[in-house]
Amino acid sequence: MFRLYDFLPSGNGYKIRLLLTQLGIPFERIELNILKGETRTPAFLAKNPNGHIPVLEIGPGKVLSESNAILFYLSEGTPFLPSDTWERSQVLQWLFFEQYSHEPYIATSRFWISILGQADKYREAIKQKREPGYAALTLMEKHLTHHTFLVGECYTIADIGLFAYTHVADEGGFELTKFPAIQAWLERVQAQPQHISITQG
Amino acid sequence: MFRLYDFLPSGNGYKIRLLLTQLGIPFERIELNILKGETRTPAFLAKNPNGHIPVLEIGPGKVLSESNAILFYLSEGTPFLPSDTWERSQVLQWLFFEQYSHEPYIATSRFWISILGQADKYREAIKQKREPGYAALTLMEKHLTHHTFLVGECYTIADIGLFAYTHVADEGGFELTKFPAIQAWLERVQAQPQHISITQG
Repeated sequence: MFRLYDFLPSGNGYKIRLLLTQLGIPFERIELNILKGETRTPAFLAKNPNGHIPVLEIGPGKVLSESNAILFYLSEGTPFLPSDTWERSQVLQWLFFEQYSHEPYIATSRFWISILGQADKYREAIKQKREPGYAALTLMEKHLTHHTFLVGECYTIADIGLFAYTHVADEGGFELTKFPAIQAWLERVQAQPQHISITQG
Repeated sequence: MFRLYDFLPSGNGYKIRLLLTQLGIPFERIELNILKGETRTPAFLAKNPNGHIPVLEIGPGKVLSESNAILFYLSEGTPFLPSDTWERSQVLQWLFFEQYSHEPYIATSRFWISILGQADKYREAIKQKREPGYAALTLMEKHLTHHTFLVGECYTIADIGLFAYTHVADEGGFELTKFPAIQAWLERVQAQPQHISITQG
């Protein structure tokens, strides 16, 4: 059985929980509290020297890290990843956008404000994340104004990857009221079969 | 013919130039000077609303952004991308690592120091990039101590993706002398057929 090293509040971990659930694949979830250094132990660093969750353990010594690479691994050969090279590449384009231009602003702000509960301590850093975070949302809004889902008008791992931190952007201080196309898309994603919330382990 | 929107000093652009050259695919290179706002024009933003190079124009209205997604698109069905799902996922793991844990520290420091030539202005920011940048190099060093290339003991787009900014890490103030396994790997990458340098358009 797959073993998922995870931290419940993590959007990156949630991506994998959500996809595994929607694929109907059973898995064992190992909760590691990143706030208590549980991802910095020698045992965990042997699995992922980067010290980040999620990590998917597929078998003895066979582990995969980087949430979006795990999404790709699990969705290969399923309707969650198109088989066409051009569409697959667009899925990856969105997933790289997520890790470079979205997560470092929106997820990081959420971490400081809602996970650590230290908005005051990180006030200046949070301020610097505002503009690029809203730029990422604006780019999504433009695209979703003309599209049902991010790629090929189908629900794919691109939607799962971007949904994870977008739907809790308000926990990072980002107002979604100005983004009607994003809000409608969030509802379409939440209406997919076997959808689970971020708080469900 | 493919059209590549590019900026010669960019490691992200270099990844695509290098792969296209090694695949023997002719392409037209459009140089945009990011320092002069040439990626912020309405015409370019219509191609990539993110305003980043590289962008690969495949045909009218068919454009792909995100350097590592472009690498995936071009290498599908070639020896530069394994066909096995597990190996492909490991390639993606390295490429997501590159964009999240390597590029934001090493490439950004190089940009401030060697492209903008403003080491003094960005002194404090550069200092903050030191530790995570060296952590990324240390992780690579550990892996390359036991491996010829990053995935499957073959030269793949994972190596191209990580080579781009690692081989010019010194231009960002990162000393590679402490990383003998990385240095030997850089030489193996440079010895591949049809290798070109970052300054070759």
